[in-house]
Amino acid sequence: MKLVVVGGIAAGLSAASRARRLDASLDILVLEKGSRISYGACGLPYYIEGQAESIDELTLHTPEFFRRERRIEIRTGAEVVAVRHPQRELQLASGERIRYDKLIWATGARALRPSRANDRTFVLRTDLDAERLEAFLQARGPKTAAVIGGGYIGLEMVTALRARGLAVTLYESQGHYLHRDDDWLTARITERLERSRVKVRLRTPAGAPEQMGEDLILWCAGAQPNAELLADAGAATGRSGALAVNDRCETTLHGVWAAGDCAETHHLVSGRPVWIPLGATANKTGRVAGANAAGGRERFPGIAGTSIVRVAGLAVASTGLNSAQARMDGFRPASAVIEAQERPRYFRGRKLQVELVADRGTRRILGATVAGDEGARGAINVVATALASRLTLDDFLSLDLAYTPPYSTVMDPLLIAAQQLARELR
Amino acid sequence: MKLVVVGGIAAGLSAASRARRLDASLDILVLEKGSRISYGACGLPYYIEGQAESIDELTLHTPEFFRRERRIEIRTGAEVVAVRHPQRELQLASGERIRYDKLIWATGARALRPSRANDRTFVLRTDLDAERLEAFLQARGPKTAAVIGGGYIGLEMVTALRARGLAVTLYESQGHYLHRDDDWLTARITERLERSRVKVRLRTPAGAPEQMGEDLILWCAGAQPNAELLADAGAATGRSGALAVNDRCETTLHGVWAAGDCAETHHLVSGRPVWIPLGATANKTGRVAGANAAGGRERFPGIAGTSIVRVAGLAVASTGLNSAQARMDGFRPASAVIEAQERPRYFRGRKLQVELVADRGTRRILGATVAGDEGARGAINVVATALASRLTLDDFLSLDLAYTPPYSTVMDPLLIAAQQLARELR
Repeated sequence: MKLVVVGGIAAGLSAASRARRLDASLDILVLEKGSRISYGACGLPYYIEGQAESIDELTLHTPEFFRRERRIEIRTGAEVVAVRHPQRELQLASGERIRYDKLIWATGARALRPSRANDRTFVLRTDLDAERLEAFLQARGPKTAAVIGGGYIGLEMVTALRARGLAVTLYESQGHYLHRDDDWLTARITERLERSRVKVRLRTPAGAPEQMGEDLILWCAGAQPNAELLADAGAATGRSGALAVNDRCETTLHGVWAAGDCAETHHLVSGRPVWIPLGATANKTGRVAGANAAGGRERFPGIAGTSIVRVAGLAVASTGLNSAQARMDGFRPASAVIEAQERPRYFRGRKLQVELVADRGTRRILGATVAGDEGARGAINVVATALASRLTLDDFLSLDLAYTPPYSTVMDPLLIAAQQLARELR
Repeated sequence: MKLVVVGGIAAGLSAASRARRLDASLDILVLEKGSRISYGACGLPYYIEGQAESIDELTLHTPEFFRRERRIEIRTGAEVVAVRHPQRELQLASGERIRYDKLIWATGARALRPSRANDRTFVLRTDLDAERLEAFLQARGPKTAAVIGGGYIGLEMVTALRARGLAVTLYESQGHYLHRDDDWLTARITERLERSRVKVRLRTPAGAPEQMGEDLILWCAGAQPNAELLADAGAATGRSGALAVNDRCETTLHGVWAAGDCAETHHLVSGRPVWIPLGATANKTGRVAGANAAGGRERFPGIAGTSIVRVAGLAVASTGLNSAQARMDGFRPASAVIEAQERPRYFRGRKLQVELVADRGTRRILGATVAGDEGARGAINVVATALASRLTLDDFLSLDLAYTPPYSTVMDPLLIAAQQLARELR
């Protein structure tokens, strides 16, 4: 029985490894079109920032490791150009044909690019993008940069390029960041960016690259799923354009699973299929796809949409739905925004802002956004766990969270937000 | 209608404030036997450590604040010596009698003391204890200290006294710390203590204070609930000696509630009444007692037993049951202990150790213990939230936790522990 996995980064290698663990007899082949496998693409902005000396530091395992330790064959430079599912056959760019019995599609997503780029224009999605950008930074020593797009990668790259000493202007066509139209959050991020001397241009679509004056133009305007080849072979896609899968990570093609950034997943709060391509989800869906391809019966219940980004030293994290999203998904949201110390003043605690959203009718917690310092990740993870459990505001108010002065205040900021929201909903 | 609250620290003032918020017409009086109210007793070790310049920095509000802003009368130096519930009357040490219609008992706990103390022997529970200890440190400049007891306060005070430059020996009669007989945890704490040059004497009961050679003897051998006066008036106590309450924080006396360290509470995992006196619980049970005394109908569902302590720079946190406790409570526990980076190596992440415990039969998560750095609190809070929701290991494996390299690894240490435990339970 031959399992072929297309894609050798997060989802693909999680899938292959899990399949091997559950079925020692499977013949497993991973095809990766690039030359590098198993690297943490989420770390690329930090390679540019200078935290990592080389992309190799972002790499978990080599092809040799997979071959030797897990008996998984890896072929790099192997680009699939067609899927002939009736024949259970892939065609490579080289013309070679590869048979499979079972197929896992883990081809990720690709950066959107401007229609007319020039040699000062970059995107940052793959290891090659990062190497090309790093070479440009070293060879040409640009002094000014335009970052186009205030999403995760845009905000990370603004921070990275400031750390490299460039004068940076951020262009964002919407009036807010991260697709979150929460005024307090926009204000807080803008304040941090401006404090680190980034020029912020909200509600400002970027011009065509050739008309922009900056030495370096970094296009961070989003991505799209690499779903077309499998869609051409008959697999259904969702409204997002990503592959439609069920909770076993199965596509609509029998014997074909999809995982990671090329596939949709189920949103635990809205109950709808969504496309939110993030690394941790790629790992988890890869594991489930791999288990099921190896004959297991595992489910991936879905995501809460949890994310975190560091912007000029500020941690911004969110999970679930904000008020606007909740309304679109048919809820009647109420929200409370509070600001509190992460730790007692005598431990020099910094402020954490929390917005907590719940449904007026059912009192179910729908989501949260937090901005702050060390405590932001822990706080959002508590809400993410509450979302997975469908906790109500009343359950949430009684959560037994850890307290000791060096790390927290006696009343956790999350609980202060919940108390305020409970007064709102009385 | 007159509500009297006995105790003016965490639970008592939370109760009084909540009652006022829900009923503007109540006549509210708080009786505090000490001279200071509303201070964070959990901060006292950090006052000794030197983080706070004075105990006033640990104080949230003054009696004037409560009078002016909340119309709550506070009397300090008012020690209740008898409760005559049939007459709805308290007797003070001064002989004065005070009538009540409703009563909230929030008298906290007191430190256990050695049977024969001397003037070098201290406990640390109240503001007065801390002032007395600080005065001794300043006046007598002790060079050596014995800390008796490796519980929370003992470990905090070892750290504090080392920060003050004393040579410290820790005596603990059991073979482990914090009543957690988990070998990996004992080893990690011992390593940290010894690295900060604390002499550790496990399985070593302290001698009588007069026979100990150290300049300063700090007795941190536990506490007991201040429940006797109300018990003498007829209120039931549990096996722990603390006041028995239902989920409305009502005692067995009609019209009398109890909250904070003097009362038991319900353990969410074992389902049993427990006495785990901690500050965050005092605040929450105080709020519920206050709401119900003011005519509300609120529930306190219970605690997960979540706690955290900083030991010589190491964060140690736990929630729920460890394996030994789980067995005693009738579960069939399985556990996995893992060690992982809190953040990628290129962000200089330190190691986090996690032990996760689940029941073999139901696969329900029963508890966790973690030791590490900044991420420890966030991690234990995720498990505490999972316990409140009765999540199974399978739910837990899919939790959508936030990932970005500056703050975390792509596979959260909690999920690595859950994966290992799932292999164990297959």
